[in-house]
Amino acid sequence: MYEYAIGVDLGGTNLRAAAIESSGQMIDRVSASVQYSAGRDVIIAEIVTAIRAVRDTVGESGLRGVGIGVPGYIQLETGVVMGTSNLPGFDGFPLRDEIQRLLGIPIILENDANAAALGEKWIGAGKDVNELVLLTLGTGIGGGIIVGGRVLHGYLGMAGELGHMTVFPDGNPCGCGNCGCLEKHASATALVGMARMLHLGDSITAEDVYNLAVSGNTRAMQCFKSMGRALGIALANLINVFNFPLYLLSGGVLPAWDLFAPIMFDEVKSRSFTYSRTNPRIERGILGKEAGLIGAAYLPFQHGYSFQDAVAD
Amino acid sequence: MYEYAIGVDLGGTNLRAAAIESSGQMIDRVSASVQYSAGRDVIIAEIVTAIRAVRDTVGESGLRGVGIGVPGYIQLETGVVMGTSNLPGFDGFPLRDEIQRLLGIPIILENDANAAALGEKWIGAGKDVNELVLLTLGTGIGGGIIVGGRVLHGYLGMAGELGHMTVFPDGNPCGCGNCGCLEKHASATALVGMARMLHLGDSITAEDVYNLAVSGNTRAMQCFKSMGRALGIALANLINVFNFPLYLLSGGVLPAWDLFAPIMFDEVKSRSFTYSRTNPRIERGILGKEAGLIGAAYLPFQHGYSFQDAVAD
Repeated sequence: MYEYAIGVDLGGTNLRAAAIESSGQMIDRVSASVQYSAGRDVIIAEIVTAIRAVRDTVGESGLRGVGIGVPGYIQLETGVVMGTSNLPGFDGFPLRDEIQRLLGIPIILENDANAAALGEKWIGAGKDVNELVLLTLGTGIGGGIIVGGRVLHGYLGMAGELGHMTVFPDGNPCGCGNCGCLEKHASATALVGMARMLHLGDSITAEDVYNLAVSGNTRAMQCFKSMGRALGIALANLINVFNFPLYLLSGGVLPAWDLFAPIMFDEVKSRSFTYSRTNPRIERGILGKEAGLIGAAYLPFQHGYSFQDAVAD
Repeated sequence: MYEYAIGVDLGGTNLRAAAIESSGQMIDRVSASVQYSAGRDVIIAEIVTAIRAVRDTVGESGLRGVGIGVPGYIQLETGVVMGTSNLPGFDGFPLRDEIQRLLGIPIILENDANAAALGEKWIGAGKDVNELVLLTLGTGIGGGIIVGGRVLHGYLGMAGELGHMTVFPDGNPCGCGNCGCLEKHASATALVGMARMLHLGDSITAEDVYNLAVSGNTRAMQCFKSMGRALGIALANLINVFNFPLYLLSGGVLPAWDLFAPIMFDEVKSRSFTYSRTNPRIERGILGKEAGLIGAAYLPFQHGYSFQDAVAD
């Protein structure tokens, strides 16, 4: 009898759930569009419905547990959502216990970028390593750090806020209170902001900037160069800090890799002697939007094995 | 019968060795001034002499092993010194095996800043936590990261090069090839460089700058403010990356804490929402120059317990 776990991903407009075997093989999946603005009760009902649908299809026997990737940060011990930008009514809400109560299945919450990093580590670009960093480049920038095969959480579950690393001390202001955060210089939102400053159009989208750059527009290309420089500074720092074998990028901005990556690599090479000496891989994730869903499903397979307990003397 | 280990620290002009019990109690120590410029053979002979002296005093029974903190980075698997700024002839030298051969005792090498971080974790400011970051502020800036009670090494032992994090992308040039490295803006050397730029004297020392600042010289005070800002940027990044409970500073610049710390804290508060939300400690190490010696002695007590093995699934 095989074992499986259910992963749930709360994406921008879609909620997805999937049943995945311990081998990494996906055996069932559902997807539902969700109006996140409809509020907490609606969202929770949709999560529960999606999990039930998968469980009913695959069967209750062999179900190891459910992992949920949440766009926000989680107080791990309590399973309480502590901060989220697009889930109304979730701040301070004990999401884990509530869903556990409704379903009677063990639930594990994880930050969505951490889940994506774990997915890539399990069956993606990082399956041959035990330590990696993932940056998710979307409207914002998230981060996930894998140490010894497991998510690095820090003491309150907030480790990996890599989008808020300072890359330009006097750079663009960020909602977090800082100036010059990576995500204000290298996300899709940052690209659009830079393009607007360069008068490329008030209603321009990140995709427009991409298309303009591909067609040779020098101002659009400049936006991607600036993005590459910011990413290079951040990656050089991460490489100097961690000396890991693998640094992954993923997210909606990835198709523009050829536009920003050359500058990014130049910056990393000139800024990190650890890079030159140890030659780590800097690559694109290979699981795309599935990474978070897959990583969420991996959580129950890791559970019961406490990182802290495991390494304490 | 108690167990003990010998720690060795290769300081700027002094080589120290100490016998320390598993409880952390120091039971013997020796110190010798070493002419590092005299070359590898002389240095190795001094190391061996110091270890023998301690072993002969305390006795061979109960000796668990020897840990040596080396100012440079170590390829851990091979025990080869891969880079060091002030040990002539050590680059590429199999130091661990050579000393093991001469003494017939198990030897463990560690980077000196990593050893200092481990010392503070064992019986210092970090004894109540399992995860911390240490910055050593001296002529350069070193770093040590403790995860799950153990040194984070990365895949080739080069993790924790925190002095080479970029804090100002267009800042002062560094010998590593980068511009704006933390250690070019917040070390004793950086203080002297800034003071010279401010015409405070061509032969001024870091201590002179300190004394001038204490006596109210505004230009000297400015140097410490600039240092505090650079440290704050670096610490904010580390806090956002790790969300650890403790960040420690140590090293020769520490007496100037009151001159740079207020600006440093202001910078951290404005740059890291993880800091505001989780309130980690940012403090001075309490073991001073002993941290590296003590941490080196702790290495044999941790040995045989592989971090990678422990956390692998």
